[in-house]
Amino acid sequence: WRSRTKHEILQYVFLKWTFVFLLGVLTGLVGFGINMGVENIAGAKFLATTKFMATRGFIPSFLLYAGSNAVLILISSLLCVYISPAAAGSGIPEVKAYLNGVDAPNIFSPKTLIVKVLGCICTVSGGLIVGKEGPLVHVGSCLASILGQGGSKKYHLTWKWLRHFKNDRDRRDLVTCGSAAGVAAAFRAPVGGVLFALEEVTSWWRGPLLWRAFFTTAVVLVVVRTSMAWCKGGTCGYFGEGGLIIFDVEGVKSEYGLLELFPVIVLGTIGGVLGSLFNSLNAKFVVFFGGVLNKRWPSAKVLQAVLIALLTATISFLVPWYAECRPCPEQKVGVFPVGAECPTHGRAANFKGFHCPPGTYNDLANLFFNTNDDATRNLFSIGTRGEFRKSSLLIYLASSYFLAVITYGIAVPSGLFVPAILCGATYGRLVGMIMGPIAGENSLDEGVYALLGAASFLGGSMRMTVSLCIILLELTNNLRMLPLIMFVLLVSKTVGDSFNDAVFDIHVMLKGFPFLDAHPEPFMRHLTAKEAVSGPPVTFNAVEKVRTVVEVLRTTSHNGFPVLEENGAYLCGLVLRSHIMVLLEKRKFLPRLDDSYYEEGIHLSSADFAKPGSGKRMKSKIENLVLSQEEQEMYLDLRYLTNTSPYTVVETMSLAKAFTLFRQLGLRHMCVIPRKPRPTEGCPIVGILTRHDFMPGYLHSMHPHLRG
Amino acid sequence: WRSRTKHEILQYVFLKWTFVFLLGVLTGLVGFGINMGVENIAGAKFLATTKFMATRGFIPSFLLYAGSNAVLILISSLLCVYISPAAAGSGIPEVKAYLNGVDAPNIFSPKTLIVKVLGCICTVSGGLIVGKEGPLVHVGSCLASILGQGGSKKYHLTWKWLRHFKNDRDRRDLVTCGSAAGVAAAFRAPVGGVLFALEEVTSWWRGPLLWRAFFTTAVVLVVVRTSMAWCKGGTCGYFGEGGLIIFDVEGVKSEYGLLELFPVIVLGTIGGVLGSLFNSLNAKFVVFFGGVLNKRWPSAKVLQAVLIALLTATISFLVPWYAECRPCPEQKVGVFPVGAECPTHGRAANFKGFHCPPGTYNDLANLFFNTNDDATRNLFSIGTRGEFRKSSLLIYLASSYFLAVITYGIAVPSGLFVPAILCGATYGRLVGMIMGPIAGENSLDEGVYALLGAASFLGGSMRMTVSLCIILLELTNNLRMLPLIMFVLLVSKTVGDSFNDAVFDIHVMLKGFPFLDAHPEPFMRHLTAKEAVSGPPVTFNAVEKVRTVVEVLRTTSHNGFPVLEENGAYLCGLVLRSHIMVLLEKRKFLPRLDDSYYEEGIHLSSADFAKPGSGKRMKSKIENLVLSQEEQEMYLDLRYLTNTSPYTVVETMSLAKAFTLFRQLGLRHMCVIPRKPRPTEGCPIVGILTRHDFMPGYLHSMHPHLRG
Repeated sequence: WRSRTKHEILQYVFLKWTFVFLLGVLTGLVGFGINMGVENIAGAKFLATTKFMATRGFIPSFLLYAGSNAVLILISSLLCVYISPAAAGSGIPEVKAYLNGVDAPNIFSPKTLIVKVLGCICTVSGGLIVGKEGPLVHVGSCLASILGQGGSKKYHLTWKWLRHFKNDRDRRDLVTCGSAAGVAAAFRAPVGGVLFALEEVTSWWRGPLLWRAFFTTAVVLVVVRTSMAWCKGGTCGYFGEGGLIIFDVEGVKSEYGLLELFPVIVLGTIGGVLGSLFNSLNAKFVVFFGGVLNKRWPSAKVLQAVLIALLTATISFLVPWYAECRPCPEQKVGVFPVGAECPTHGRAANFKGFHCPPGTYNDLANLFFNTNDDATRNLFSIGTRGEFRKSSLLIYLASSYFLAVITYGIAVPSGLFVPAILCGATYGRLVGMIMGPIAGENSLDEGVYALLGAASFLGGSMRMTVSLCIILLELTNNLRMLPLIMFVLLVSKTVGDSFNDAVFDIHVMLKGFPFLDAHPEPFMRHLTAKEAVSGPPVTFNAVEKVRTVVEVLRTTSHNGFPVLEENGAYLCGLVLRSHIMVLLEKRKFLPRLDDSYYEEGIHLSSADFAKPGSGKRMKSKIENLVLSQEEQEMYLDLRYLTNTSPYTVVETMSLAKAFTLFRQLGLRHMCVIPRKPRPTEGCPIVGILTRHDFMPGYLHSMHPHLRG
Repeated sequence: WRSRTKHEILQYVFLKWTFVFLLGVLTGLVGFGINMGVENIAGAKFLATTKFMATRGFIPSFLLYAGSNAVLILISSLLCVYISPAAAGSGIPEVKAYLNGVDAPNIFSPKTLIVKVLGCICTVSGGLIVGKEGPLVHVGSCLASILGQGGSKKYHLTWKWLRHFKNDRDRRDLVTCGSAAGVAAAFRAPVGGVLFALEEVTSWWRGPLLWRAFFTTAVVLVVVRTSMAWCKGGTCGYFGEGGLIIFDVEGVKSEYGLLELFPVIVLGTIGGVLGSLFNSLNAKFVVFFGGVLNKRWPSAKVLQAVLIALLTATISFLVPWYAECRPCPEQKVGVFPVGAECPTHGRAANFKGFHCPPGTYNDLANLFFNTNDDATRNLFSIGTRGEFRKSSLLIYLASSYFLAVITYGIAVPSGLFVPAILCGATYGRLVGMIMGPIAGENSLDEGVYALLGAASFLGGSMRMTVSLCIILLELTNNLRMLPLIMFVLLVSKTVGDSFNDAVFDIHVMLKGFPFLDAHPEPFMRHLTAKEAVSGPPVTFNAVEKVRTVVEVLRTTSHNGFPVLEENGAYLCGLVLRSHIMVLLEKRKFLPRLDDSYYEEGIHLSSADFAKPGSGKRMKSKIENLVLSQEEQEMYLDLRYLTNTSPYTVVETMSLAKAFTLFRQLGLRHMCVIPRKPRPTEGCPIVGILTRHDFMPGYLHSMHPHLRG
């Protein structure tokens, strides 16, 4: 089936590049659209609230603010709960699992895509402590998967050329490029996006993919830049700076000495501790609510989301209300940049007036009463030493940390990058404020400390390294920061790793995906392949009666069956359930147990065996098959379908070694063969290992003595 | 052997990070040392020649120039030919082959390292069209390998802690980090270095390596930056800008429209054509001289190198002599940068006077009579529109292309990056000069065109993509160039790929390394595993007579032997020659064919089986083994050493599939087992597949009908 003509190969290559180009354009546009939606809705909301505050007072403005937030979250969670539950959360665990070989239902369907985009806009503009970066990764992957299928099969949008893309590998490659594109669109970081896909998302990496993924992210960058340049004319409503987190390094002193090593270690440690604590607390919270509430009443999920929205709104409105007004800083060149006036009102103001009289500002409102992106920008702002009080930063840290813990995991699209950056930047700036007087004139800017703090929290929670480093480098566009960022990540990752797993890995586990790690668990060395096999396999003879085959397919849920020849004397190979189903549905039966007749009677193309799309389960089911009595007495020649050279391991091989083979080659079934040929005992196969047989939980339940 | 205690794991992790830290520091220092050596020797040479020219005239200055170049190259080639032949060339093919699993002798020995460093300094300062970037990759890898062995075993510098590093994987990881460090030191491109290692050098990539390689390159960056800052005080002689290729983007107009797409396509096409032509011509040249001259007389290699040095010196001295002097440009702000005066004499002058009177300059001397780095910088220089005449660029292009073709492959350390950049930048600037009048005011700077030209030649010859792109981005430190650079690389790689292989792959082939590509050749699909097996394997019984074992080891050159049990009834496993040798040398013999006795008598630790260093062949040889008559009559229990679960494939498996298994898991031996058990026919193993059995040349010779 791999013998393609030159023309077909050209077609394939052309299509491949067209797809990644389209993917880049689409992801860039969708990312831009999400940003524009968020900025406009949130902008309108904040302006209206500020106006109300001036004219009607506290209570009405609070009601307007909380009410609009609650409505936005209500829309988002209704979409998520009732239309596409797969769209909840960040989507990165799902993408990771898919690229590991787990086919979770509906994660890349068009419905999920639409819900994710709309939900993401509502959630982020609804004021929750969530980001749009994770969802963008999912959106990019969705777009990739849908493109690869040429639209959904459900809507009959498939296309003849696409037949070459009906296989796992090409689809996986596209999805990988999609996830890179998502990161690139979120952070304007083309290299960071590629490395994110490489480091965090994929399980198998192929060389040529690097270049294609990079091409995708470059297209994304061009699209995002172009659309933002287009918006500079003021045609995009409240959409100002594009809602992107930007670390403006102009005027940053980037010289630093050994004295800076100490706060960097402190930041790394704080990041590691708070980050891993976040992972644990959040996991506990998700397990608790997932178990108690959500399974019984789906509407409880909606209620939970709305309650958290109200809580967030209350905190972010009430806390600044009780803050004290501070006079605007003087306009000194060198201390504050010339542009950083203190207008105290209006959408893009660095200093928020909130309820304060003109000429003063409310430093808590700078953080609370703002979109997350603008709050981050305030924390990252350079040359604004003393903008925040230490107490304000502490209050904000506590509340945003608490809200982030309870928010991630509720039934709305929600990313984790922004909460992590917010918390990290807050304590980073705090450390910077403490270091300022100690280091004196030579100290780094508070904004740089905020950036390092953000790096430490990201490292402590997500445990990525290179990709985070590059993403942050691309935000700052300043290579001189590299050693500092690296060092902070090194410390925070090391500290975090000593407590628990990375947050996305925890969520992969919580969602119950049978994820295969890159390396076998140490205890697997003490088991043999045979010990992991759950029992003797269900086998077929090379030529088997239709009735038997149907019976076996109905009563078992296996997807692969060993085929034996010469009455079980030796192993012919492995046949897949889906392939047998094709034979059954096409009624390719043999009236008699006669081989030679068969040779002519069958004409199936490789397209008949192409994998259906993963958007909607189009799999044919054995339950729907109706066969006449006569047909059931006929025979199937399974040899035609059998993979006659499956990968095999000997029963005495250590499970760790078998795992390596299984994982490295991305297998779905692996045959375990006996060490000594057993002509008398019959079965030339000990069993079949599948992904589930390698799950530590399963192995521990079979071999309890290996635990701990 | 994998059951380590917690303490040992900590030791191991600590050592791992210490090693990469040391590796970064050392590579950075050596890179800096090479730069300083080159700049000082070349600087002294040029100054002396210029002085001679002013005082003594043409002939004496030419003799001085050509003579000093010849002497430098003579030293370099003598070192290469008589002390360490492995140090010749760029070393990237050797590193690639090593990381693919080919153990070429001596490629990482301390001798090679020293010769490479000294030779590289001499060659580059000797005026050949060669770079120091490739050799730096080799140097980094050498340092890594030597570090991993704790110094050479030859000099008894091994260390107890290092026992954990005596395996292929850890050594390979370190070498990978070393190659990344080399690129980082050469281009000051930490991210580019990592991606270079990932894309071009390694064959297996493991996730954790990404972070460690990145750490290494960051350390390199810090070291290089620090040492260059230290040199700013003038303490380093003629070492000015550090001898690094730098593309100074200050004042570059980075806006561009669709009109620039056309010259970019032109550049990409030229790069693809010239690059692939370079690969072919150079390969032909290397084959011709390698075959005719060098095999017979090693001194012919030295002669060849010196002749090429004289030829280069003659061309680079004579051609500018006949060039016409041009008046220095006026000092207009905006056209020429303020610093770019026309001093026409002195070391770091942008404009070279050569033999011209003051106030005029010689544009050919700007290119020819300069170090390669300074010539590149002149070509890349921004805001110097019209510095070169078109005819000068054409002359320089022709001669540098010709010299580059005949130079790479001679017996001196020589890199390919600089020749490619020189040629590419020359025609790039030429295209820029042609485009200038067409595009008018909006045209890109000629320096930008030169950069794009360099990118196109690199892409057309080396066929790397992402890593080149990032390296060039890190040179320019300007993300706006990204789409242009990517597009040029895309075109030139596509054009080049339609002609021949990448230059390093060609040289891997020329050197005869049995390199395994990432993917099987298409024709392998039409072969079965059995058809690649060269014959029935030489097998051992589980308990074998010493005499038989020694006899077999003496008469065959196999490294792995299947062990059969119960008189050949079934396969026990695979035993390695090196492991048998340990048993033989330790005289662990059994007096009688008696198993139970044996269990107590043997005590070997895993350290006994550790792989010896690759620096010097310390392998024990069977020829050196002397056994008494009595000992020869004793027995060896091979089961103790046998890997009882080797990876096996069934004889009917397609060779392509078997190749995937072999390559993905990085095997050295793979057992081919029969499809049907053959209890009567005896042998339960069809054969053993090794790396050589997958070589296309070998397979074609066995199955001539598959050719073409």
